[in-house]
Amino acid sequence: MAAQLSQLGEFGLIQKIAKGMPLSGSVRLGIGDDAAVVEHKPGRKGLLTTDMLVEGVHFLKTMPPALIGRKALAVSISDIAAMGGVPRHALVSLGVSSQTEITYVAKIYQGLRQIARAFNVDIVGGDTVRSKTLVLNVALTGEVRARDLVTRSQARPGDHIYVTGPLGNAYASGHHLRFTPRLKQAQYLVRHCKPSAMIDISDGLASDLRHVLEASHVSGLLDREAIPLRAGAKLSNALNDGEDFELLFTLSKAKARKLHQAKTRFPFWQIGEIGPGKSAGAVIFTDGKTKPLPGQGYTHF
Amino acid sequence: MAAQLSQLGEFGLIQKIAKGMPLSGSVRLGIGDDAAVVEHKPGRKGLLTTDMLVEGVHFLKTMPPALIGRKALAVSISDIAAMGGVPRHALVSLGVSSQTEITYVAKIYQGLRQIARAFNVDIVGGDTVRSKTLVLNVALTGEVRARDLVTRSQARPGDHIYVTGPLGNAYASGHHLRFTPRLKQAQYLVRHCKPSAMIDISDGLASDLRHVLEASHVSGLLDREAIPLRAGAKLSNALNDGEDFELLFTLSKAKARKLHQAKTRFPFWQIGEIGPGKSAGAVIFTDGKTKPLPGQGYTHF
Repeated sequence: MAAQLSQLGEFGLIQKIAKGMPLSGSVRLGIGDDAAVVEHKPGRKGLLTTDMLVEGVHFLKTMPPALIGRKALAVSISDIAAMGGVPRHALVSLGVSSQTEITYVAKIYQGLRQIARAFNVDIVGGDTVRSKTLVLNVALTGEVRARDLVTRSQARPGDHIYVTGPLGNAYASGHHLRFTPRLKQAQYLVRHCKPSAMIDISDGLASDLRHVLEASHVSGLLDREAIPLRAGAKLSNALNDGEDFELLFTLSKAKARKLHQAKTRFPFWQIGEIGPGKSAGAVIFTDGKTKPLPGQGYTHF
Repeated sequence: MAAQLSQLGEFGLIQKIAKGMPLSGSVRLGIGDDAAVVEHKPGRKGLLTTDMLVEGVHFLKTMPPALIGRKALAVSISDIAAMGGVPRHALVSLGVSSQTEITYVAKIYQGLRQIARAFNVDIVGGDTVRSKTLVLNVALTGEVRARDLVTRSQARPGDHIYVTGPLGNAYASGHHLRFTPRLKQAQYLVRHCKPSAMIDISDGLASDLRHVLEASHVSGLLDREAIPLRAGAKLSNALNDGEDFELLFTLSKAKARKLHQAKTRFPFWQIGEIGPGKSAGAVIFTDGKTKPLPGQGYTHF
């Protein structure tokens, strides 16, 4: 039997895709971060990201359509935020069956429009096609001042690890439909104490922290008592559920001191520290002794 | 019973969507052309377009996967070409079931990569998600010199109407999987005899000509004998099948003379003339006498 996607997993697939994608000089960062980085105006970089939401996987058709539309754009805004940028222009593709009620579709766009307005995003185009399965794809451009750009790859030993909010139980609690992308927090950070690395937590803390560690060639030490949990969530939910869309970021000790002294209204939780390590440092817990980080994050395939 | 999408149609839906999408100052052209136009570098505009392809609607899963991937990007390149621009950066979203063979998915990306390379497009990112129905979404950015930008809205009475190739029977013949986006032709035109309006024929000549006429507030007179037909196509196929991805463009009489005198290796067919009319001019045929243009183009819902 030929090998199936379920054996490869999403990240295996992404690696396979990224390999052999030759990039021209206008691309600063291709596949493998929250958004691609391309040349733009002087002093600024362009950001590009896309997210596809499929009925039965990322939402149920019985959920409020305005919130489904909202989520489709919110997840991409979260990606742009995690790069230190601001969102600009969105393209929305909708695949929907002919039997769908017009009011249902209108509500999807209502939700899209509302969050677009709230985050100064222009919905400039899209595509509408027939599909038995309801599917929404948003492509979003953004802009980032060159000096504000934050990737996953610059976390350094000794850096502190932070998150912007409680984790776990995001799907069951409905948080995944109602979360506010952490754009304000990210903009505050890049301006006042620029993170060495940043990512948004979409696949779960374990998986997304691992992305940072692998990209930065470091290891990480998490303090299990310090990880903030959403109501109804256990530690394993925080590690594996995903769809939190909080920011995970790392700060040098000097920047960490600055953050702790700053009078910011945004809450931040320090949950661990970056350690040394060559490629793909193992993630370890402190609870008297250390042990390997359990959990693999959300399984896409 | 509440109204369904099938009663509204794609263009009714697009109008509904476009209404109430407030746009900021950075957007020159929002929903309603082949691509959106946004502010970019000095002297240039940014172009944004997206296309979603769904299994069973735009392709069958049994078609060669490399050609499915190829098509997903080719249709967006065609949109950028129709604006007078060149494509730059692509984001590819793939929804696919876990049971799909890895080699099948690899071939989709192989097809994407090949056409990307041929048209100097960088695939800079994307998303891979689980979906029972195979679905591919491409979002593509482009660039256009400000003076090269061609929209649908500037066709003027007396302009000649052209197409770049034979029409009809595109799906049954397999053309929809193998067509070459008319980027070279479009670039030749904007540099040597800039069209007053241009669109790519994705929904059929009748429907896409109507888009130009409505946007330009003019009418059109087609010469039925002059419309080039693909092998196996009747006139009704040319008018209604869609998926030709040839360019439909209009030229002032002076530019038309220039094109006919030019020694270009690209074939162009003159198929009619723009006439007067306020909003949404009716399209009429010459065959001794005139009659209303039959056909509605491809029905999306």
